[in-house]
Amino acid sequence: MPRGRPPRGARAPRLSGSLPVALDAMGGDKAPGEIVAGARRAGEEGIDVVLVGRPTALGETGDLEVVAASEVIEMGEDAAQGVRRKKDSSLVRAAELVRDGAASAMVSAGNTGATMASALLRMGRLPGVARPCIATPLPRLGRAPAVLVDAGANAECTSAMLVQFAQMGVAYASSRYGVRDPSVALLSIGEEPTKGTPLVKEAHAILAAGAGVRFVGNVEGRDLMPATADVVVTDGFTGNVTLKALEGSLRFIVDTLFSVFSTDDATKAAAEVLVPHLLPVAAELDPENTGGAMLLGVDGVCVISHGSSSATAILNAVRVAHELAEGGLVDRLAEAVKPG
Amino acid sequence: MPRGRPPRGARAPRLSGSLPVALDAMGGDKAPGEIVAGARRAGEEGIDVVLVGRPTALGETGDLEVVAASEVIEMGEDAAQGVRRKKDSSLVRAAELVRDGAASAMVSAGNTGATMASALLRMGRLPGVARPCIATPLPRLGRAPAVLVDAGANAECTSAMLVQFAQMGVAYASSRYGVRDPSVALLSIGEEPTKGTPLVKEAHAILAAGAGVRFVGNVEGRDLMPATADVVVTDGFTGNVTLKALEGSLRFIVDTLFSVFSTDDATKAAAEVLVPHLLPVAAELDPENTGGAMLLGVDGVCVISHGSSSATAILNAVRVAHELAEGGLVDRLAEAVKPG
Repeated sequence: MPRGRPPRGARAPRLSGSLPVALDAMGGDKAPGEIVAGARRAGEEGIDVVLVGRPTALGETGDLEVVAASEVIEMGEDAAQGVRRKKDSSLVRAAELVRDGAASAMVSAGNTGATMASALLRMGRLPGVARPCIATPLPRLGRAPAVLVDAGANAECTSAMLVQFAQMGVAYASSRYGVRDPSVALLSIGEEPTKGTPLVKEAHAILAAGAGVRFVGNVEGRDLMPATADVVVTDGFTGNVTLKALEGSLRFIVDTLFSVFSTDDATKAAAEVLVPHLLPVAAELDPENTGGAMLLGVDGVCVISHGSSSATAILNAVRVAHELAEGGLVDRLAEAVKPG
Repeated sequence: MPRGRPPRGARAPRLSGSLPVALDAMGGDKAPGEIVAGARRAGEEGIDVVLVGRPTALGETGDLEVVAASEVIEMGEDAAQGVRRKKDSSLVRAAELVRDGAASAMVSAGNTGATMASALLRMGRLPGVARPCIATPLPRLGRAPAVLVDAGANAECTSAMLVQFAQMGVAYASSRYGVRDPSVALLSIGEEPTKGTPLVKEAHAILAAGAGVRFVGNVEGRDLMPATADVVVTDGFTGNVTLKALEGSLRFIVDTLFSVFSTDDATKAAAEVLVPHLLPVAAELDPENTGGAMLLGVDGVCVISHGSSSATAILNAVRVAHELAEGGLVDRLAEAVKPG
């Protein structure tokens, strides 16, 4: 099946338009059932998908191509060890399909660390990229989402890494959401350039001096929802904690609202009037509909879908992976990055 | 007015019961009007308050004592410089009243950095405390709030500092909220001890080995609202970003709800049924009602009220300051801290 892929240095035009999306059929809390269901829906939309996993475990796969992989890296498993030891795992095989030019992109709702490690080890980094980062959408009602980088790939960062995250974030925001000349902000504890950790102050100085992005200064935690900048840059520790805090607070509020709605007959009747107006808002904020996070900086498209992904979430993730591969995201990222 | 205070080493019993709360009348977006109004309400409740500020600016102060201070450290002003240069500022004078044994506690809704610097420079640190930290309540509906330390005093921390924050956070959670044997968690990007930055891993190891607190391991951002542990420990950068992200998301949701409520006559009628049920929830989540953040580790009680504090917020902050001074918080903190 591998069709071979020219090394990146050769910069041959990609033939990704003709390639399927490799989907880790074994990854995620609802795998393989919902994953296969999502793949079939993508197939019905005309998006070519290859399922990677244990063929006997997948159930009815319809017309979809299946690439056999005998192992699974479990959700709680050590990522580096899993990728090293389980060479025939669905994740590693999916990454290899991209590396070998047999797939245009990979998608997984499984172990996030192992997805990153598989992509990094099998696809390799783009030239000049110090470390890949995770880009996650920050919903903004009625507008294109903002992009948070790094949402958790690197707990420890240098200022040069943050600057590259900014550059890749800009390429991603424009490729993915069509944002023109995206604004870039640095997440800190005050707007002044003197606020924050030494890491943030250093990154601020480099970005302000001109790093090929439209830097608008520091933003604070309160500027994330809705985000005031198109790309918000931070280290992966702060990014991960903050993103999960936002997700947790939204879930808490939704739970609290539903609890109030079910107080008595009067509140139930009132809720029936309001819920149709609230659902579109909830849908815009729901990670299920955002198409997942993206690993930026590896030599291939890699979409990290939420662990609890349903068929709908997988459909969205596959759509996004397909569109970004078609749109030449990886080439844009390679062009955006200035070696740090 | 200074009545003198025995040095902390002497551990003489405090006479704080007879002392007023020193209130920075000039600090906050709504100063001095709302600050004075809040002080007068506290006075009506029998809590003794000294207003510190420009006497001619304060308007009608009723029976309240006023200590003159000719200068004001503005909201945007550099904290360290402000405290150094403006020796007759309301903030510095308020801290001096505590230092000199003329007040039991200080409260300000002004420049947070300058409030910390005034308290630190004038009251000094408690013995053994490396750095003071800010403790902020994390609301939990129907239960005592959890405590987040450090919510922003120290952008850079050592593991020894995090351990002291945990110890002080425990003393505060039990003094302030009556929580028995509070549980302590470390904020990280995964529950495993191996997850996070070197700082977090080191602090985890020390806390797990036994640091005089009931350590329950790491929590993630999603475990903050509602908080699963009574005390959540993090560095001041992560704490500040996360807290502001939570505040921002709650405000966003409330704004979004009100926008949906006002869609048409039907939604307005439905909202009228629901709002009475939602208001108590909103009140529990509102920083106005939580009594403010607390600077832990200085030799005195120092309450940092929200910059936008209304008279109600000031009343709550003064109440909290008074109760904590009466309850001997500072002595408890001094006992809780093991030199790092």
